[in-house]
Amino acid sequence: MDKGETRERGEMASQSPEPTRIMMAVNESSIKGYPHASISSRTAFEWTVAKLVRSNAAGFRLLFLHVQVPDEDAFEDMDSIYASPEDFHNMNEKDRIRGLHLLEYFVKRCHQYEIPCEAWIKKGDPKELICSEVKRVQPDLLVVGSRGLGPFKRVFVGTVSEFCAKHAECPVITIKRKPADAPPDPVDD
Amino acid sequence: MDKGETRERGEMASQSPEPTRIMMAVNESSIKGYPHASISSRTAFEWTVAKLVRSNAAGFRLLFLHVQVPDEDAFEDMDSIYASPEDFHNMNEKDRIRGLHLLEYFVKRCHQYEIPCEAWIKKGDPKELICSEVKRVQPDLLVVGSRGLGPFKRVFVGTVSEFCAKHAECPVITIKRKPADAPPDPVDD
Repeated sequence: MDKGETRERGEMASQSPEPTRIMMAVNESSIKGYPHASISSRTAFEWTVAKLVRSNAAGFRLLFLHVQVPDEDAFEDMDSIYASPEDFHNMNEKDRIRGLHLLEYFVKRCHQYEIPCEAWIKKGDPKELICSEVKRVQPDLLVVGSRGLGPFKRVFVGTVSEFCAKHAECPVITIKRKPADAPPDPVDD
Repeated sequence: MDKGETRERGEMASQSPEPTRIMMAVNESSIKGYPHASISSRTAFEWTVAKLVRSNAAGFRLLFLHVQVPDEDAFEDMDSIYASPEDFHNMNEKDRIRGLHLLEYFVKRCHQYEIPCEAWIKKGDPKELICSEVKRVQPDLLVVGSRGLGPFKRVFVGTVSEFCAKHAECPVITIKRKPADAPPDPVDD
């Protein structure tokens, strides 16, 4: 090894004292009345831990972003009656609790693996907000789960992952749900 | 931490005794007479080492695939005269040496970082061959560099990275060349 190579290696080692910051966009199961992390979110998380973080927990920091879709939640409350400002407050409170419940799952898992992490909730359009949060937070990498729908289903369902892979201002990995884990209707997750 | 959690963690640790196998598709600079690794290949490699492998060299194995395009190489020999079978043999030999020279660059870099690796050459259409090699070799992850062309340039140049992100049977990361590293014409690399 000549002097040039030694210098290059030294530079490399000093280039990454900061942990690699991986943003993960996580969501709930889309099956109504099933308030848990979606199969694709869990698959993406476990893949990231097993294949990238591995035994080097201190070298990484996971940033969990959960975007709540206001309309979708309201749809679930179709049979509710809103008679006072408190009813809306209660609805928002319910959303908040569901969101926190979801993030708690991932933060607990990180704690088990001793991986540093942080987690937060935003409300709005997932694909737009994921990209704007990438711009704001500037992670090294964005990981998104995908239900792995065929081209026909995709037209109607739309894929957040495809939008992010194209528009997010950082490298993006899309992790597809394993076929064996898919529920009978692939739109469900 | 209850018993269930402890068990889950134990399972996780035992899930990845094998290193994470990252396939990297690498190519030469497209500037004629400049037989070196392209800017985007080098950017993708350095990003992978700095952000994913980090200090955990033993946890990863890099698999370098270089696909040579026969037509493109022939184009460079426009002024040559082919008068005997030996001329073609010599041309193939020249291709082989260029390909080996490229792979040598990455294998040497891995050696400096003490990252286990292997490297090989295929001839044909890069996007098709990268996807078929992913199918054959089954890496955990495919990393491809990208010149980060705008939509106008992309129509004429085509992007191997977009095809692979869509069709490769494993997670794919596309690493865009830094704007500061781009040559005057973004098609060059």
